[in-house]
Amino acid sequence: MQIHTPNWVKHAIFYQIFPDRFSRTQQLKQKLLQAVSFEDWAAAPTLYGYKGGDLWGVIERLDYLSDLGINAIYFTPIFQSASNHRYHTHDYYRVDPLLGGNEAFKALLDAAHARDIKVVLDGVFNHASRGFFFFHDILENGQLSPWLDWFKIEGWPLSPYNVEQPANYACWDNNRALPQFNHANPMVREYIMEIAEYWIKAGIDGWRLDVPACVEAEGFWQEFRERVKAINPEAYIVGEIWEDARQWLDGTQFDGVMNYLFAAPTIAFTAGDRVQVQYVQDRSYRPYPALFAVEYKEAIDKLLGLYDWEIQLAQLNLLDSHDTARVLTIAGGDRASVELATLLLLTFPGAPSIYYGDEVGLPGGIDPDSRQGFPPESQWNGELLALHRDLIALRHRHEALRIGKYKSVYASGQCYVFERRLEAEVLLVAVNAGTEPARVTLEAPGETYPRKVLFGPGQVEAAEGHLELSLPARSGLVLG
Amino acid sequence: MQIHTPNWVKHAIFYQIFPDRFSRTQQLKQKLLQAVSFEDWAAAPTLYGYKGGDLWGVIERLDYLSDLGINAIYFTPIFQSASNHRYHTHDYYRVDPLLGGNEAFKALLDAAHARDIKVVLDGVFNHASRGFFFFHDILENGQLSPWLDWFKIEGWPLSPYNVEQPANYACWDNNRALPQFNHANPMVREYIMEIAEYWIKAGIDGWRLDVPACVEAEGFWQEFRERVKAINPEAYIVGEIWEDARQWLDGTQFDGVMNYLFAAPTIAFTAGDRVQVQYVQDRSYRPYPALFAVEYKEAIDKLLGLYDWEIQLAQLNLLDSHDTARVLTIAGGDRASVELATLLLLTFPGAPSIYYGDEVGLPGGIDPDSRQGFPPESQWNGELLALHRDLIALRHRHEALRIGKYKSVYASGQCYVFERRLEAEVLLVAVNAGTEPARVTLEAPGETYPRKVLFGPGQVEAAEGHLELSLPARSGLVLG
Repeated sequence: MQIHTPNWVKHAIFYQIFPDRFSRTQQLKQKLLQAVSFEDWAAAPTLYGYKGGDLWGVIERLDYLSDLGINAIYFTPIFQSASNHRYHTHDYYRVDPLLGGNEAFKALLDAAHARDIKVVLDGVFNHASRGFFFFHDILENGQLSPWLDWFKIEGWPLSPYNVEQPANYACWDNNRALPQFNHANPMVREYIMEIAEYWIKAGIDGWRLDVPACVEAEGFWQEFRERVKAINPEAYIVGEIWEDARQWLDGTQFDGVMNYLFAAPTIAFTAGDRVQVQYVQDRSYRPYPALFAVEYKEAIDKLLGLYDWEIQLAQLNLLDSHDTARVLTIAGGDRASVELATLLLLTFPGAPSIYYGDEVGLPGGIDPDSRQGFPPESQWNGELLALHRDLIALRHRHEALRIGKYKSVYASGQCYVFERRLEAEVLLVAVNAGTEPARVTLEAPGETYPRKVLFGPGQVEAAEGHLELSLPARSGLVLG
Repeated sequence: MQIHTPNWVKHAIFYQIFPDRFSRTQQLKQKLLQAVSFEDWAAAPTLYGYKGGDLWGVIERLDYLSDLGINAIYFTPIFQSASNHRYHTHDYYRVDPLLGGNEAFKALLDAAHARDIKVVLDGVFNHASRGFFFFHDILENGQLSPWLDWFKIEGWPLSPYNVEQPANYACWDNNRALPQFNHANPMVREYIMEIAEYWIKAGIDGWRLDVPACVEAEGFWQEFRERVKAINPEAYIVGEIWEDARQWLDGTQFDGVMNYLFAAPTIAFTAGDRVQVQYVQDRSYRPYPALFAVEYKEAIDKLLGLYDWEIQLAQLNLLDSHDTARVLTIAGGDRASVELATLLLLTFPGAPSIYYGDEVGLPGGIDPDSRQGFPPESQWNGELLALHRDLIALRHRHEALRIGKYKSVYASGQCYVFERRLEAEVLLVAVNAGTEPARVTLEAPGETYPRKVLFGPGQVEAAEGHLELSLPARSGLVLG
């Protein structure tokens, strides 16, 4: 079959927002919320406290995002939920009141679209919360509830809060706060499909799907795709799959996945043995041990071999997220690691996604620490921000960086070079992850390779039939 | 001050619908609900089971209600709630999915208004449910919840379901399913006011307020009235107050109350010692012991002396409700008791309210038994239905029965007579509650009293200066 993924995604640069932590408006629209008290914005995040970021606040920062070159936002969940990360959905049709409710979201969507910024929401359809109406009805009415078959009840009585008794229902990750839907029930299936349709009709540009591998009902994600694309053929569907995702990337389900298979080797190569293992172990990706260039090339070649090129161009590439420690912290605070990884992120096929705050040097360990409040401007790392701005602009200027073919052309020691090629346009990207300056010689038959430095402190010399790159320690270079 | 109550209420005949039990559509509009299984419609009601009545079904019965002469409906709660009576509100902005959701309600409101039928909803603002979002957030986040002050937390941890531990929050009637709002919190107050405004703007014609005496915040119901009436000055506000309601009927709060002070003596007079005490004791009204006519007159005169006449005309008069046994059952199945009580109901100042099914002879003990499924036509008591139809038509024909002055003119033994007088129009209503035929002589100076029999098997003879009524045993008579 001919696989089709949304064209806009191939040209998108995403910004991932954790809504409670990005921006809190000072101009409250709702009388209702005027007296709500939050935990201190700058304090270390806790599992249960809210910092009060909201969507009105995001609207106020859209100019910042536009200036940065962002043209798509992926929001972690925004629906009504009694958790600061909002993965415990209480109501799929209501934007959380702390975020400003449906009114604020409508305003945000309009304001984003006016700036040509797409908006993708997080759909948590494997499980709901124990306060979710249909589950709550079972808690209240027991075996007489009409919604009994919506969940996986294993015995009676249910014990939603008292941990001394068995929960007696299936829940995600053995967390009784998160009862799992029974997707085999056609009503549940229809319920979820209608939610997906509703928000696509409301104008969102796609769905990021939380733990979709847990949904095992036959044909579920195929139907999901069909019904979403029937409304908007260019809607983006991206699944949270950390590993080999071929099962879901056959063109009938997702357009792409959160590309932790890119993140892991990229961190392992650029941060190398700086990686602080305590921040990455016990996670579903492996950005360690350190990789040499040859190993990095192998990992990338393998990744690029997994899926159709149309899928590759629609992957959601990332270095970190709300589910990981931040790359800066993983790298022990080493800024060059972040810079090199960011260069690789912004020159790779697929849509780069920048986790809010990474661009200004926000640190963060494993969650909840990686969900700190976005810092005030006085605390921004200006050089990191400039690097992001430059690399984003570079990507926007050069279509080859977005949809051009990718080919490794050099891998030795800690130096790695690849080309992106789109018809006549060719760019070369080189990274020296080592702590010593390096010289790289590339065979350059004819006029194939560019010689103009578009980014980076390195230098290039052209000679008969080859190119000589001089790469300072821990630096990257883009030629075009 | 000049008290004003809605004019339409003075001319209204209400029908009280318990939505789960009145009418279930056979033409399901929602794919979602097609496989929901309900308890048998005809089986005895249970505390936790649903019978699946819905608002689409009510629409299908609007012609029946119009034919009966109904021009207003009071719905017990319709908002999303995990209880068959729906007094445990889970979401004040969402009509329950089993009822057809907001879509069905919109259709119902339009269809009712097209038939000049008003719609009054039940507002449960004293307490919410333990699944209600803002309370649920406290269950999930404990002392870090931003909504802590929305309820009355008395200690930690909370125990919403495990009855072996103290609940540690204030709840209605010590029922931990029903956490009480903290109305002293200005946010809570605003939240409730906005709900009230929202549904009035959506077109409902009024609010019946559940247990409003429990809401003790200063000026709460005054503000409620101001904000509701600012949107629709003719919106009806009727409180659930079972006893002396002067505190709330001063013209600044409610237009009327559920008039159990009318129900109690009316049942005690018409059913007399037939009243089955087990169905009425432990309730907040006293339809026993049996009353003679003089005692009935005293109770009614006292009631009519309590409030301004403008209030009297806007009372919600009733014989029974979802909170009581049905009058037929209270009277031990004696139909004449129901007929006499219904005659008094439909000739009294204030809006009569007929509890669904009473008009066709549906029996029912204390709840949940008084909430049985509305019976199929084959089980209707045709004579009782005809009586309702006739008396309703009579009330609609004679304005004096609606807004004319009320005056007792005779009370002796078990015979009671009163007049309703509006300018030139005078009607006389006589009831003989005794088991023997009775003759009643009324002094009739000049031409004041009517002589034409409008209703009932009794006879009238006019003589010089007085009127002689012949009243068969257990019968009523209306002259006009």
